[in-house]
This record gives sequence, structure tokens and C-alpha cells, in this order.
Amino acid sequence: MRSILIIGAGKSASSLVRFLLKASSKEDLHIIIGDISIDNARSLTADHPNAKAMQLDIFDKANRQEAIQSADIVISMLPARFHMEVAKDCVKFNKNMVTASYVSKEMEALDAEVKEKGLTFMNEIGVDPGIDHMSAMQVIDRIRSQGGKMLLFESFTGGLVAPESDDNLWNYKFTWNPRNVVVAGQGGAAEFIQAGQYKYIPYQRLFRRTEFLSIPKYGRFEGLANRNSLAYRSIYGLENIPTIYRGTLRRIGFSKAWNVFVQLGLTDDTYAMQHTEQMSYRSFVNSFLPYSPTDSVELKLRLSLKIDQDDLIWDKLVELDIFNSEKIIGLKNATPAQALQKILEDKWTLKPEDKDMIVMYHKFGFELNGERRQIDSTMVSIGEDQTYTAMAKTVGLPVGIAALKILNGEIKKPGVLRPIFPEIYNPILKSLEDYDIKFEETEKEFIGYNTDQLN
Amino acid sequence: MRSILIIGAGKSASSLVRFLLKASSKEDLHIIIGDISIDNARSLTADHPNAKAMQLDIFDKANRQEAIQSADIVISMLPARFHMEVAKDCVKFNKNMVTASYVSKEMEALDAEVKEKGLTFMNEIGVDPGIDHMSAMQVIDRIRSQGGKMLLFESFTGGLVAPESDDNLWNYKFTWNPRNVVVAGQGGAAEFIQAGQYKYIPYQRLFRRTEFLSIPKYGRFEGLANRNSLAYRSIYGLENIPTIYRGTLRRIGFSKAWNVFVQLGLTDDTYAMQHTEQMSYRSFVNSFLPYSPTDSVELKLRLSLKIDQDDLIWDKLVELDIFNSEKIIGLKNATPAQALQKILEDKWTLKPEDKDMIVMYHKFGFELNGERRQIDSTMVSIGEDQTYTAMAKTVGLPVGIAALKILNGEIKKPGVLRPIFPEIYNPILKSLEDYDIKFEETEKEFIGYNTDQLN
Repeated sequence: MRSILIIGAGKSASSLVRFLLKASSKEDLHIIIGDISIDNARSLTADHPNAKAMQLDIFDKANRQEAIQSADIVISMLPARFHMEVAKDCVKFNKNMVTASYVSKEMEALDAEVKEKGLTFMNEIGVDPGIDHMSAMQVIDRIRSQGGKMLLFESFTGGLVAPESDDNLWNYKFTWNPRNVVVAGQGGAAEFIQAGQYKYIPYQRLFRRTEFLSIPKYGRFEGLANRNSLAYRSIYGLENIPTIYRGTLRRIGFSKAWNVFVQLGLTDDTYAMQHTEQMSYRSFVNSFLPYSPTDSVELKLRLSLKIDQDDLIWDKLVELDIFNSEKIIGLKNATPAQALQKILEDKWTLKPEDKDMIVMYHKFGFELNGERRQIDSTMVSIGEDQTYTAMAKTVGLPVGIAALKILNGEIKKPGVLRPIFPEIYNPILKSLEDYDIKFEETEKEFIGYNTDQLN
Repeated sequence: MRSILIIGAGKSASSLVRFLLKASSKEDLHIIIGDISIDNARSLTADHPNAKAMQLDIFDKANRQEAIQSADIVISMLPARFHMEVAKDCVKFNKNMVTASYVSKEMEALDAEVKEKGLTFMNEIGVDPGIDHMSAMQVIDRIRSQGGKMLLFESFTGGLVAPESDDNLWNYKFTWNPRNVVVAGQGGAAEFIQAGQYKYIPYQRLFRRTEFLSIPKYGRFEGLANRNSLAYRSIYGLENIPTIYRGTLRRIGFSKAWNVFVQLGLTDDTYAMQHTEQMSYRSFVNSFLPYSPTDSVELKLRLSLKIDQDDLIWDKLVELDIFNSEKIIGLKNATPAQALQKILEDKWTLKPEDKDMIVMYHKFGFELNGERRQIDSTMVSIGEDQTYTAMAKTVGLPVGIAALKILNGEIKKPGVLRPIFPEIYNPILKSLEDYDIKFEETEKEFIGYNTDQLN
């Protein structure tokens, strides 16, 4: 039997474990799930005969090294900052390794040693990063192999609520870490390049600079810029591409309403407010508006941000009950972002029967045989339930498939890798199609920007 | 002869040195001006028989200690972060010390030792902090000594261009460090308390939340909140005051136009832009606007921030020539804030004949004998020229007066101090009147906020 050690039994491990257990008899696999909480690990093994749960503290060296030594391959589903303890042992004991996280500088630094030992450390093999890399590189490599020249690459991913569970005015629920959603876009201007011009969007404009796009059968979405698109030029070998832009998807209208929170300062996570434990939602909002002995919080907010009474933004705010004077934040020394998260969780938490959705959209502009062409490539994955969410599937399945293919010697490229090589992305994307994770392509003339508005 | 050592011969030392030299014969003073650049020091001594310039490197211990040991009192006009080297030696060699800077934690920590030795370390004795402390505390102490109860304290200071030199649409020129003006307000939300309610203003709203006020003979101004007003509650003994608010003054309309820069992201100082050395002003602005093959930078900016063609904001932007495609930023790897500063310096640098102006406004609300009263206290100081600016006078004169009074034993309170005690502020404010730095008071009924809009 071949032994696969999965470290970290969080929410995102569900589909990964199901995939590997299902393959375990045929592939002769023994799955060991190690977590700081053995109960977490046990809930995933579910008494499967080919699985074993173990208590694993990665900061306990003996405990960690024993587990890694006895495995044939290691999958780290830990938060990204904890991978290195595991990675160093994998080098030491000659084990291949798989993670869904971004390649850190420390991980990158292991590359020479990993290569020398002929090991494969596969990273960024979840959804974003992961499926985005593979599906984009497959099209980019195809265009280039035909002699095409890349003119534009735009790529957007969103974790959203599935259409059948989409029942609020924001068309949004928390399908992943709420905190990351509340503070998204902070920490520096978004930077990208459009038609050869470097462009910068500060946080205070981010939610007013959306692009619209359409996905067959799923309707329209808006994309807002991620912080750094430029790094992808070197990763994808697109050093001289005049336009590269990566972003996050929401349903149209989300960002315009979210901008109210940004402008008021409700998403700030850098300081603690006074008296938030006893503070009502209404007082919280009022803290960011001028004092008045007479004017209502509603009127002050409308005037401050010039929101008409018949603007849908207003209904979105009311839906969240932010003017309620009886609901209490109930958190001690909360930052504005923490208080806002509390308010949003009341309304944006998935109901037991709700499903999530992962949406991905790539746009490729290129010149081929003297013609300017555009390929749109889209993927939508809907969750089964709140265990096998679209997020867990799109993260866990490529991780599991990659691990199995490495174990079976189908993938044997050595080094600290991203899945940007044909011998890696082709077989994995093919396998993902069995789980209904597949891309639809449409091709048309490439017309670039704004050309319908040319006078 | 008594020896006064002034360390740091920057722009703000001009009025200080003139004051002390003028007093030197009568008061039997020998003024030593030490600076890292002896030329700087010499330009201030100007061959006066009672003055001596010296090269002084405060990081050269022997050099520094020798200078301090031979002085009777030390004035540090160095940037605040360099005071501590001097302060520790002053403790060691039993010298009194004066600075115009905020009391740092390290300076505060010397208090017990300074007291024990019977020394006076007078800090925050420039204009803001300095004259603001003294003039506010004089009124607050008077109100309290009459049995009054403080209800409100608001205080605003501005460094502006004098009316006779005010010839641009912004009613503003750089009269102090331009960099501080460009990045003003960043680094955290403004926090204050109004009618018992804690209020927070994030940077992106700061320039839209101004208060208007009027100063006799000088017209109307707008005040925008400083970062932290709350610390002044304990400094001024106003722990339970329901309203305390401190801010910065501009002429009305400045902030609304400045907000254009804030919203676009032009004041960001946290990252370097690409290719700024060759970048035109127009390209700089365009970097923060969406790409378009056809639409002009002007149109995109107007649409982005919804600026009507007849809005005065527009004329202010045009006056700065920000759409010029031939003027070049010319700075390598500039941050947006550095590039903006370059553009502003073209237009906002004082002309040789221009004068500056310091404006201060305090508003005190209080209850006395069952009546609610309000005192407005204002001070305006106009610069003589570009050496003896209003800034140099209002910083240097209280420093010089304090130093002389300490030397003469008129001020002998020991400790690391701010000028918030009657025995300190009364004689200094009295002396300042000789230099036309005096406050005008008006008293009226206190009506609080917005009451003219009550329905």
C-alpha cells in the first residue's frame, strides 16, 4: 500500500479526502489525516478502512518527522505560513509534496535542493491559484504553438452563492473566510497594465472601477482588480504583453454598494473602536457620520454619500439592518472591519440548504495569421452541499489528482513548481472534467477596449 | 556672560536667533549656534559680536558633550527624533533644555530624573504645539477658576499664505514642508468626540468632513480633523468634556478640490510608480484613470469624480497644469505623493516677495452660573518676509522667550514639561504680545451644533 499523508483537516479538505478514499482500493492507497485536533481528522476519515486519523502537531518535531517519514507523499492543507516546517522535512526524507498555496520566497529557495533530489513539490494547485493557472496556460500555450502573439490576458475568479440560493439584494453570501472578504483590496493600490499603460487603482476607487463580463447561462458579473496583476507576466511567460489584468468576480451592483462601506471607513481593520461591546448597529454607522442633535443616521448617510431614496444601494443597506438600534455588535474593542463582519454575517451566512459557486473567466486577445482574435474561456462549478462545496471541490480535486499522478509517476517533473507546464496541466485538467470542472470556450474577433463607443 | 547653545540652524531658527541676539547685550548673553553645517550656523550669527557659529555633529559624542557642558541652557531645534542625544547629556551635565517638539515617550521617561535634579525641560513651546497649548489653557483655567464647567473645546491651526500674497484659486501655498502637506491625514482615521459620541473619519472622507469658521478681518476658513484629538483630554485636564475636536485650517474650498487627489490615489506614498522619470504630468494623472483609446484624460477624470464643467474644482485642477503633456515629473521611482508634490511645487512655492500667515482659532463652550456661554479666541500672525516668516516667528519667539525666562529664573518649574501651567503660559503669552502675537476674544451665548437648522 502507498501512504498519503494529508496534514490539516480544515473545511477545504472534504473533497480532497473523498476523492482519495474513493480511489484508495483501486489505487492501493492508505490515507493518513493528521490534524492538531484528532476529532477534525476523524470527521474526515469517517471510519473508512483505508484511512487513519492522527493527532499531529507540526511544531512537535518528533511527531511531525515520524509522520512524514512513514508517508509516500505529503499533502499540506495547512495555512500557507505553516508549510515550511513540513517542506523542509519532505526534502530531508525525500518525499514529494503538494500544496494549494502560493509559492513563498522560502519555498522557492528550496528549488535547487528539491530538483537535485529529483523531488516534485507541487504548489498553487487549488482553484485560484491552481485551476486558473492550468486553464489559462493551456490556451496561451496553444495560441503560441500555432504561432499566435498574445495581446491581452484578463482573468477573473469569484467565490459566490449559487443561483438557486441567491436570495438577497447583494447577490452575495460568505462562501469562504468572511474576514478576507471584508478587508479585500486593502494594503496597497491595484497595479496592472492596459494597452501598454501602467494603471493604478487605490483602495478608495477599487469598487468604482469594475469591468462587466458575461458568462453563458449564468448572466452578467463585474470584475474588480486584484492587487498585483503584473507578477503574472513572468509566471506565464507574457513579459511583453500590453494588457494583463486579474481580478475578482461579483454580481453586478455589489461593488457600488460595497463602496459605501469603504467610503465611510467601515472596512478599516487598523484600529479598535471605543465601546463596541455595547454598541448598536445604528450607533456603529453613526460613528462615521457627523454629529447632529436632530438629523437621523439615515439622512446623514444619504447626504454624505449622495444616495437617492430610489437608489438600489439604499435597499441593500436596509436589507443588512445596519440602522437597527437594538442589534448589538457585542465584540470587545472591535475594529470597524470586525464590527461590519458581524453585521454582514447575520445576513450573508449560508443557510443549511444553500450552495456555493465558483466562477472563472479568462479573456485572451491575440494575433494569428494577421487576424486579431479573442477567446473567452469560462468555468462554473456549483457546490453539492455545505461539505462538498464548490470551493472545496475546486481546491481539493486538483490537489488530490496531482498527488495521485505524482505518486503514480505520471507527473515526475522535479522542482518547486506551479502547474504551468503542459505535462502537468493537460492530464490534470482532463481528470477534472470527470468532476464537471471544465471550461467552455468561445472565439470571436478581438476588438479591444471601448470600440463600440468610437465616434 | 550666560551662554545659550542653539543646536540646529534650520529655517525655523531665524526669529529665535534674532530675538536672542537683540536681547543679548542687555541680558548679557552669549549665543552659540551649532549645526552639522557651519555655513548654516554662520548665516544665522551674521557676525554678531555676541554670537558664535560652530560645527556640531550630535552623533559625535565628544563634540556634543563639550558644547553642552559649556552652555548655561540648551535649545534643540533639531528634528524631533534627534532630541534624545541632547536631552540625555542635559540631564548628565545639569542643563535646562527647550524644544518645540512633541514630548516623546523617551523624553517623558526622563521626567523623574529631570525633576530630581531640579531641571526644566520645556517642550511643545512652538506654535502647534506651543502657542495653542498656552492660549487654550489660559482661557480654560480662567473659566474653571470662575466656577465654569467646560462643555466643548475645538481648536484649529493653519499655516497659510498671507492675504496680500494669496493669488491662486486654492488660496494656498507651501509655507512649510510640502511633503507633510501632501501626505497630511494619512496613517489612520481621525478620532474625536462630539456631544459624548466618539466619531471616526477615515482618510478617504477627511476632506469632505470640514467645519466652517470665521475670523474677524480675515474671513472664512474650513477646519479638517487632526488624527487624534482625544489625547488632549488628559493633557488639558478635560477628561469628561463631551466635545473635543482639533484640526487644521484651510481656506474654504481647498479640501473639496484636494479630495480629487485623495480619491484618485495621487497622495499615496506607499509604493513607487513605473517610469516616473520620463512621465508627463498628463500621463501621471492618466495612470489613475481607466484606459481608453479615444477618451481624453480630462473627460475620464470628470466622469470618474463627477465634476461638472462649471465646478470651481475644475479650474483649480487646470490651474495646476496637471493635464500638461510636456511637463515631466523627472523623479526616478517616485511615489504618487512625490510626483504630486513636484506638480504642486511648480505653483505653490512662495515667490520671493510672498508672505505667510499662521491662523489659530479656539472655540470654548462652557456653563457658568447656569448660563451656557461660548468664547471664540483667534490669533493671526503674518510673516515679514521669507526669512522671518510667520511660521519662524510663532515657533521661534515662544522658544526664545521661554529659554530666557528659564535662564533668568522667572520660570523654574522642574520636570519634562508642556507650557500648560499658569506660571509658564502667563508670562510667555504676555511677552508674545510685544511681537503682535496676541489673541482676540469674543463671547456669546453657546448654542452647540446645527441649531440654526432645527425645524
